Amino acid sequence: MALQRWKLTIEYNGTGYAGWQLQTDGAVTVQEVIETAIQKFSGIFCRLHAAGRTDAGVHAHGQVAHFDLDYGDRPLDGYMLMKALNAHLGHGRVAIIKAEKVSNDFHARFGAINKLYTYRILSRVAPPTFDKNLVWWMRRDIDINLMQEGANFLLGTHDFTTFRAKECQSKSPIKTIDRIDIQKIPFDENSYEIRFFVEGQSFLHHQIRNMVGTLIQVGIGKWKPTDVQIALESKDRAKGGMTAPASGLSLTRIDYSRA
Amino acid sequence: MALQRWKLTIEYNGTGYAGWQLQTDGAVTVQEVIETAIQKFSGIFCRLHAAGRTDAGVHAHGQVAHFDLDYGDRPLDGYMLMKALNAHLGHGRVAIIKAEKVSNDFHARFGAINKLYTYRILSRVAPPTFDKNLVWWMRRDIDINLMQEGANFLLGTHDFTTFRAKECQSKSPIKTIDRIDIQKIPFDENSYEIRFFVEGQSFLHHQIRNMVGTLIQVGIGKWKPTDVQIALESKDRAKGGMTAPASGLSLTRIDYSRA
Repeated sequence: MALQRWKLTIEYNGTGYAGWQLQTDGAVTVQEVIETAIQKFSGIFCRLHAAGRTDAGVHAHGQVAHFDLDYGDRPLDGYMLMKALNAHLGHGRVAIIKAEKVSNDFHARFGAINKLYTYRILSRVAPPTFDKNLVWWMRRDIDINLMQEGANFLLGTHDFTTFRAKECQSKSPIKTIDRIDIQKIPFDENSYEIRFFVEGQSFLHHQIRNMVGTLIQVGIGKWKPTDVQIALESKDRAKGGMTAPASGLSLTRIDYSRA
Repeated sequence: MALQRWKLTIEYNGTGYAGWQLQTDGAVTVQEVIETAIQKFSGIFCRLHAAGRTDAGVHAHGQVAHFDLDYGDRPLDGYMLMKALNAHLGHGRVAIIKAEKVSNDFHARFGAINKLYTYRILSRVAPPTFDKNLVWWMRRDIDINLMQEGANFLLGTHDFTTFRAKECQSKSPIKTIDRIDIQKIPFDENSYEIRFFVEGQSFLHHQIRNMVGTLIQVGIGKWKPTDVQIALESKDRAKGGMTAPASGLSLTRIDYSRA
């Protein structure tokens, strides 16, 4: 039998995990728990290749990864594989929401043509309960119209050095941002949620969290929207805002031209 | 100084708590953690009186409770009290989202004129991750139009013995349901959430969970909508459906004629 390539769509609450990628220090990662589930199910170790590495504490509603499995003559379809992996994952903070047979030239990382990330901020005086590790909690009032004005300077193709982590391994700081939409969802007279929807083919390490941490300076009135353009053009990380906490970020959806 | 009565609006993730009300067996309850926070803040023990007792594992987005405090000559307003109590609650699974001075004849339980409960069901094959303890997970497809048809038989004033827990301490099984609205929120081609919005002045013990557990029989096609009416009229708990899990239920909002 030949190897069959499988595409997994994965949801995880990243709280308490050391991110997606295997670590050498023994910290538990999402990659590791899924590779273990595949091995328990099939008896074979298979290396998982994800579309993007998420940092410690970052979540996913639609991470994608692929692996190759020789399952011999036994019958296996996507539905069976999804159910079996979820059983081995133990119904915890990681779930496979879809499993599909794909051709051997499908690649979760290199085939991705678009990624959507969502960043959530909860604005209210009382601390979060249900969404404690799923939002960035801010007590202050935030102006989303000014933030959107600032965000628009980041659209298109730029050198994003200002928003790049020191540890970033990308060859070039040039990236293209196709969408930054900022929405406000009111809850009651004293609280609301803000959601950033950010799309592009690929991002620098910490780019989205650094962009959100910069735009919030505009939202709370410390910066003018045009200060975002000045920061971008400075190509200097020290001229950007803080890195927003991991808790608010989720890798929401990844698009492929075919699967 | 005289006693001042305070009204608290409370949010809690009920997971792991033995419900609202103090227990004699040492299990941790929401009432106890808030009474402890009030005592830490004020140095005085104050008994809390809630609008409704929620069961173990049931959540609240808008529980209401009152207490009386003699704080002497020191200044105290609702905003200060809310922030102080949240600090003592430690930013965990219980938060005070509003604190208000009320007149001494305000009563959280006896003054409530309407309560809104929400019940959430997640329908998909993959197990829940983010909402693990916040929904009833069902793998089956559910018809909300048939459920709504069945639910309409429960509207108005009836003897709800069929939906009453054995342990219920209410004097009468006669209650009035003012609203049952069932909504479907689609996520993707394979999953959706169902929300029940149930309103009335007061309910029997387990009434909402027993009604949801009965209506789901209609939703999955085991019962006809008219079977709900037959079950109601039987006044026999054994003729009703199962008790839906606590995890899906939240006490969402309580209305008072004045505060």
